[in-house]
Amino acid sequence: MKSSEEKNLIIAKLDDGENLFESLKEIIEKHGIKNGLVLSGIGMLRNFVLGYYDGSEYQKKEFKDPCELLSLQGSITTKGETVIHLHTSLADESRNVIGGHLFEAEVCSLNELVIRRLDDVVLSRKLNPATGLKELQIS
Amino acid sequence: MKSSEEKNLIIAKLDDGENLFESLKEIIEKHGIKNGLVLSGIGMLRNFVLGYYDGSEYQKKEFKDPCELLSLQGSITTKGETVIHLHTSLADESRNVIGGHLFEAEVCSLNELVIRRLDDVVLSRKLNPATGLKELQIS
Amino acid sequence: MKSSEEKNLIIAKLDDGENLFESLKEIIEKHGIKNGLVLSGIGMLRNFVLGYYDGSEYQKKEFKDPCELLSLQGSITTKGETVIHLHTSLADESRNVIGGHLFEAEVCSLNELVIRRLDDVVLSRKLNPATGLKELQIS
Repeated sequence: MKSSEEKNLIIAKLDDGENLFESLKEIIEKHGIKNGLVLSGIGMLRNFVLGYYDGSEYQKKEFKDPCELLSLQGSITTKGETVIHLHTSLADESRNVIGGHLFEAEVCSLNELVIRRLDDVVLSRKLNPATGLKELQIS
Repeated sequence: MKSSEEKNLIIAKLDDGENLFESLKEIIEKHGIKNGLVLSGIGMLRNFVLGYYDGSEYQKKEFKDPCELLSLQGSITTKGETVIHLHTSLADESRNVIGGHLFEAEVCSLNELVIRRLDDVVLSRKLNPATGLKELQIS
Repeated sequence: MKSSEEKNLIIAKLDDGENLFESLKEIIEKHGIKNGLVLSGIGMLRNFVLGYYDGSEYQKKEFKDPCELLSLQGSITTKGETVIHLHTSLADESRNVIGGHLFEAEVCSLNELVIRRLDDVVLSRKLNPATGLKELQIS
């Protein structure tokens, strides 16, 4: 992982075989991110898990084959525990697109990520007992 | 709807059952947005309408079942009338992705949105009589 | 092509028939972009080529019919040669989504693009002999 920053915007390059979430945690630590946004992510992923929330819990589905990473958007909160909430779309070899809530992912070839650190806006997560989701809170 | 802002960047959280476009109009009013960009949106949507422009008009298709909201990008103009131009991609239960020009949508579970208010760049819309589209104008 | 800029953020509108990559090169020249990010792109594309990297080379597939442009994310480097690395997702008439690494594209109807110029972060490309990919370098 390599990263650099200007005006709260962090550009990172991840290498083949890296665990996407572990590398994001390294970026969070290196750049002192307490609250942030993932604005963009391209490259390829393999061995990733896509979730669909069925109204009571996340159904998880694993994909092993490499897919082109088309978009990556989400939020970073670190209050209490670090939560990286990411949604993604990916294209398989036939150019067909799949996607969902991203639970796990291994970088294939490389990833180019864009992260925005928030300095004034304070985010946190709070369990909604009705849904079981740790919902974003903005204060 | 809850929202907060730093350096022209607005982070908003919408709750289950909210009308996405009505909530965006609230955000526009609350944060004094005259011109803006929607940079990111994740969460889930239900009861949404996706458009495909066939060269002379928009074909509209309604989707009732909840889908994971993977990406949301677009522009906000308020000169004359408020136009929120959004394109989106969504994953259904099978992780298959659908998308198009978003005409209507109801928030399912929650939405996390990122909006950029423009203070200097002035945008507007102008009807292109050849296509019937209200095209973005940059002045 | 029309474009305007505030605080390193460039908003551009491309017109029907323009070559997306040629118009991006015009924007790069007009706004003095040495390093940059493509954060968003919506509208429609036709006659576009989507790539899938199979581990040794890019498989390319051409699509002629107009598709709704749902997302466009990537990076711009100009050191040595100008490289515009873009990944995209698009919806066809049935609202089904396809995507991949974008090699060529013609604007259909119009495109609205958002580009972030980087002034401090320096990007470049370096051939990785093991993969044949010109990988992003962050210095």
